[in-house]
Formats: sequence, structure tokens, C-alpha cells
Amino acid sequence: MSDKPYVLAVKALVRDEAGRFLILRRSLQSRLFGGQWDLPGGKVDPGEPFDAGLIREIAEETGLEIEIERVAGATEFDLPKIRAAVLIMEARCEPGEARTCEEHDLHEWVERKDLDKVEFSRDLAKFVRDYLDRAAT
Amino acid sequence: MSDKPYVLAVKALVRDEAGRFLILRRSLQSRLFGGQWDLPGGKVDPGEPFDAGLIREIAEETGLEIEIERVAGATEFDLPKIRAAVLIMEARCEPGEARTCEEHDLHEWVERKDLDKVEFSRDLAKFVRDYLDRAAT
Repeated sequence: MSDKPYVLAVKALVRDEAGRFLILRRSLQSRLFGGQWDLPGGKVDPGEPFDAGLIREIAEETGLEIEIERVAGATEFDLPKIRAAVLIMEARCEPGEARTCEEHDLHEWVERKDLDKVEFSRDLAKFVRDYLDRAAT
Repeated sequence: MSDKPYVLAVKALVRDEAGRFLILRRSLQSRLFGGQWDLPGGKVDPGEPFDAGLIREIAEETGLEIEIERVAGATEFDLPKIRAAVLIMEARCEPGEARTCEEHDLHEWVERKDLDKVEFSRDLAKFVRDYLDRAAT
């Protein structure tokens, strides 16, 4: 049992028109998970609706405007001082070039068949494997 | 693609000391899902942290005090005017008799092996099956 407080984060499996998924690489300057691949999204601000928080975070991180489709699932990150409950949504985005930001130094669009080969952080990797398994059944 | 706005709900798989899970039956007077079994929890109030909302909802519904353990997963309910993104947590509760409220007319504590036989609403039933499958691997 952990005494660390929870925060709510929301991330997304964002697909383009070709069905490829957007992944971002955390820069080595990132305080956490530097060099690992990540899904776009982040912490919800206090009082902010979760869907508005997700749209805002992805616009800040990539410049892309997304349309939320449905719930994909959830996972948890155990961070040094807090725990994040991470709700993960499926989303689409209009064609457009993603840009990187300070937090991420690279982005890629990957096909579904390659998603489970991406080096995500441990908990995110487990989530993605479970997600692909569920989608396959 | 749905135009219905999202709300955030949080529910819990609450276990007692014997490892049994708490389920609640929605009363026939319930506007939605009357007569079906449900997990405790409900909608988060605007501005309310999700974990505080879960603890409050379960106290209101059952009189029980829970301790949140970890994220179990998420699902979605498509309701007449809104969509609910439902984050589901694992939680424990101290021994104590659950009471029912206007929304629920019955509660039961069920063993893990019986959880997939419970007549939950459709989306919750799918979540519970996936959750038990993941726990078994």
C-alpha cells in the first residue's frame, strides 16, 4: 500500500488517417523516463475536465488537434513522489506535421503491427500489449 | 463518432479481508441499468480529485470507508445524453456492514471465481472478463 497521493493523467493512442499511431520519445533532459518512448498526453490540471486536459496537452506537445473517440483503458505510473492514474483514450487527428517540444525530442507514426516493439516505459509497454491482445480477440 | 460530452466516473473493485468483491444491484427505480449489478462508485464532481470522488461516492452508497490500492483499468458507458469514461480502481475496505441506498436495493460480497457470473451491465461485464483474464496471466 502506497501513501503517495494520486494525480490523474490522460494519454491517447492517436491515429492518423492511415491508421498509424503517434509515439513521442522523451528527451534525455526529461526528469522521468528520458530516452523512452511515450504516448502523447499528460496530467490534468486541477478542476480541468479530463477530455479538455488531453486535447490541451497534445496541442502543447505536438501542435496537433485531436478528436477523442473512446476509452482504450488505463494504467498506473509509480513516480518518485506521486502515483499517476493514467486514463488512455483512442483519438484521431487531422493530417498535419507533429512538432516536438522540450519534453520530447522525436516523434514517429508507427503501424499497429509495430506498436508492441516500441520501447515504452515498463507500465506503458504492459498496457500496450494488453490493449493489442484485447483488440485481437 | 459521438458528439456527446464526456464525464469522468470512478468505480472500484472493493475487496474485503477475505478477498471477496463488493457488488451492488441497481434498484428498479434507477433511471439507468435498473435491476443490473454494478460496482460501487460514480461520477466525479467538477473540480473534485478522482480519488476523493471515489471515496465519497462509496461512502454515500454503502457507508463503507475504502482504501484505494491501484488502477484496475477503464471502460466507457454510452448513456442517453453523455458518455462516461469510467476509471476503475482496486480498493480494500475495513470489515463493516455495507448498507444500501436509494440507487441500489441489494449488495453482495462475491468470491473472485464467481465475479464473471454476475449480471453486470454490458460494458462492465466485458471489463470484468478482461480484468480477470489479465489477472490470470
